[in-house]
Amino acid sequence: MYLLAINCGSSSIKGKLFNIANTFELHANLAVSNISSKGEKVKIKIDWEEGKGEDSVEEGEDGDKVEYSTLVPNLLEHLTTNSHVNKEDIKYITHRVVHGGTHTSGIVITKEHEEGLGEMDKLSEFAPLHNHHAVLAVRSCLDALPDHTSLLLFDTLFHQTIPPEVYTYAIPPPEKETAMPLRKYGFHGLSYASITSSIAKHLNKPAEEVNIVVAHLGSGASSCCIKGGKSIDTSMGLTPLEGLIGGTRSGTIDPTAIFHHTANAAEDAGYSDYSVTKAEIVLNKKSGLTALAGTSNFGLILSRLDASSCSEEEHKSAKLAYDVYLDRLMSYVSQYLFKLLSTLPIEKIDGLVFSGGIGERGVQLRKDVLERLSWLGAQVDDEKNGGKGGVQVREITKEGSKLKGWVVETDEEGWCAKLARDEFGF
Amino acid sequence: MYLLAINCGSSSIKGKLFNIANTFELHANLAVSNISSKGEKVKIKIDWEEGKGEDSVEEGEDGDKVEYSTLVPNLLEHLTTNSHVNKEDIKYITHRVVHGGTHTSGIVITKEHEEGLGEMDKLSEFAPLHNHHAVLAVRSCLDALPDHTSLLLFDTLFHQTIPPEVYTYAIPPPEKETAMPLRKYGFHGLSYASITSSIAKHLNKPAEEVNIVVAHLGSGASSCCIKGGKSIDTSMGLTPLEGLIGGTRSGTIDPTAIFHHTANAAEDAGYSDYSVTKAEIVLNKKSGLTALAGTSNFGLILSRLDASSCSEEEHKSAKLAYDVYLDRLMSYVSQYLFKLLSTLPIEKIDGLVFSGGIGERGVQLRKDVLERLSWLGAQVDDEKNGGKGGVQVREITKEGSKLKGWVVETDEEGWCAKLARDEFGF
Repeated sequence: MYLLAINCGSSSIKGKLFNIANTFELHANLAVSNISSKGEKVKIKIDWEEGKGEDSVEEGEDGDKVEYSTLVPNLLEHLTTNSHVNKEDIKYITHRVVHGGTHTSGIVITKEHEEGLGEMDKLSEFAPLHNHHAVLAVRSCLDALPDHTSLLLFDTLFHQTIPPEVYTYAIPPPEKETAMPLRKYGFHGLSYASITSSIAKHLNKPAEEVNIVVAHLGSGASSCCIKGGKSIDTSMGLTPLEGLIGGTRSGTIDPTAIFHHTANAAEDAGYSDYSVTKAEIVLNKKSGLTALAGTSNFGLILSRLDASSCSEEEHKSAKLAYDVYLDRLMSYVSQYLFKLLSTLPIEKIDGLVFSGGIGERGVQLRKDVLERLSWLGAQVDDEKNGGKGGVQVREITKEGSKLKGWVVETDEEGWCAKLARDEFGF
Repeated sequence: MYLLAINCGSSSIKGKLFNIANTFELHANLAVSNISSKGEKVKIKIDWEEGKGEDSVEEGEDGDKVEYSTLVPNLLEHLTTNSHVNKEDIKYITHRVVHGGTHTSGIVITKEHEEGLGEMDKLSEFAPLHNHHAVLAVRSCLDALPDHTSLLLFDTLFHQTIPPEVYTYAIPPPEKETAMPLRKYGFHGLSYASITSSIAKHLNKPAEEVNIVVAHLGSGASSCCIKGGKSIDTSMGLTPLEGLIGGTRSGTIDPTAIFHHTANAAEDAGYSDYSVTKAEIVLNKKSGLTALAGTSNFGLILSRLDASSCSEEEHKSAKLAYDVYLDRLMSYVSQYLFKLLSTLPIEKIDGLVFSGGIGERGVQLRKDVLERLSWLGAQVDDEKNGGKGGVQVREITKEGSKLKGWVVETDEEGWCAKLARDEFGF
């Protein structure tokens, strides 16, 4: 009996297959890549855990021509063809869904009980840019595996503990009621929950005693203030746009800037097959590092900090992009450290955690952040900071550093599986 | 020979008359109030400094019927009728203008040299909501006093020292070039410059050695990080909307929230006689404390924190408004203290300054802010904090407090006069 945890992004799908009959053993890692990449074939890849099967890769249609709704069924076919895993044995699927509004727990959906789909649609109508792919995936799974049970898990769940004075926006009620209140929700919650759990295990204490500030820095980036194991503030807002700069997201800017930027900001952008404004596309898909440096590849930006490696213009724009990124990151990290420090002594703070692709690989970035925290007693250890990854939790500050720095490899799919176990009691 | 410093707001005009023949002596305080107030008469008030004349008040038309362009000429008439001040003796007028784009100095305008007016119009077209009244005032002064010299002084001037990594937004270039680049400008600069100068005088050291964080809290609210006497970061952005919550301004929210709020966000609001979007009106005029508590009167909100003084609903909304206000204020204050502390020891930081109407009168707010900074060594002195105003600079922390707190009464008109003196060399 298996549980499949699926994480649908706009350019990739990640998945983990767990054997729930056998104490929740990780069985295989799944990946679909090159989705919507022009001129490249969509790639489906299965990495079986040792002794569980033969790794395999299959190439499908061109990335820019493939229908998103066919991807998960194809993945399921690939997973269950020429392997010992039968489709019928996949009893549970968890779906990571970005926006869950004010939901405080996941939504269960089965072929017989599709009531949850209505709720999901309501949420997705409000946040098509963020929920659309998960909606397609859930529907295609219900068709492909009619007997399974799906559990929708939201990135917003972990932030339901944020207090009203933090989540409230000072704006009047909208003309007509919206599907969810206009407030801060926060995202990356499955990642933050997973990281809190990893740190608790590493420090050998209950999650309820973990006090950390996390910088989850991937192509989407956010920061979170975690006190007593609970989110008390985070940088993303009503949507994932607010806060830090992302690969293509502006992060926080003057809320009226977009009206000076483009005369038809509120026009429907005709993006994909759903309705979003031009402003949302500009701010979510064409801004961030891409707008500053012409690339969302942070590694490339880091390499261009060396002026001899590229043109002068590339060096200059990469330098500005890096400096802006660091400035905004420090703003949130410092706010959140202050929040903890105003009620807890520094000894009770477990440290600053870096995660996500940029957090895990950005050696220079971590060093620059921690050096700005040296007045609080942070002492970066260059050797540990520059060392190899591959462990779930590693410290990057010197022994005795008053404020500790960590790199934690997040495990959103593993956390989804854990939540499913809590929900279904297996 | 006189200089008149005029400060035109949307509901009031403030002015100070200086005798520049006599070592820049303050001669009279001028005020026009009740502008655009329904059912109230516009009031013109002159307070002469001791021995300079008789104070007087004149009532004019109904507030909601008066034409803004007639107000400054009326004020000039009132000032020069039945007084020893002749119109012809007013040789210089300074105008506080909110948005000056990337200008690094003021603009001089005379009847013979109106070139500056073109530049002013360009700025105002981009920022009608903020510059409009000053434009009307400048034009009416040129007609009423054809021989004087006007100096436009911008709230953005003081923030020209903010570095590119702070002022740059991560958004792509707009469809067509804008009159000024889309970046952070910052506002309240004349106030911040005046406060820096007051603190320097009080501490008996050069302004270039002042390191402070200022919270300028009026009906418009912003915070500023001042290092070595220069602004290095501030909370307002491209327009005064970004950052803290104001009486009617939302402050920072998710930049796409407005598109979920109102279907026709980009529509012209038909506001006054200039063109601004509906979004700008909602976010600038109908948000902030007004949206949260139904009033922009912070004193009233403070009084409603006492549940016995009002209805339960009023108490609840006032409590939320206060808590949200405090949360956002702490976010900026902590970021900026952090910026200073990452390069300066705490002994070099001159403290946290409160100014503006709410900053000067918000005893409880100041106490709450400073208590959250007690881990940095701030010790509020309840007696000093609750004491009377009326001095330009007063400390509100205990002797020996490691981080000092101050209340500083800002003097924007005085600072405008000082800048005019620098410009014209009298």
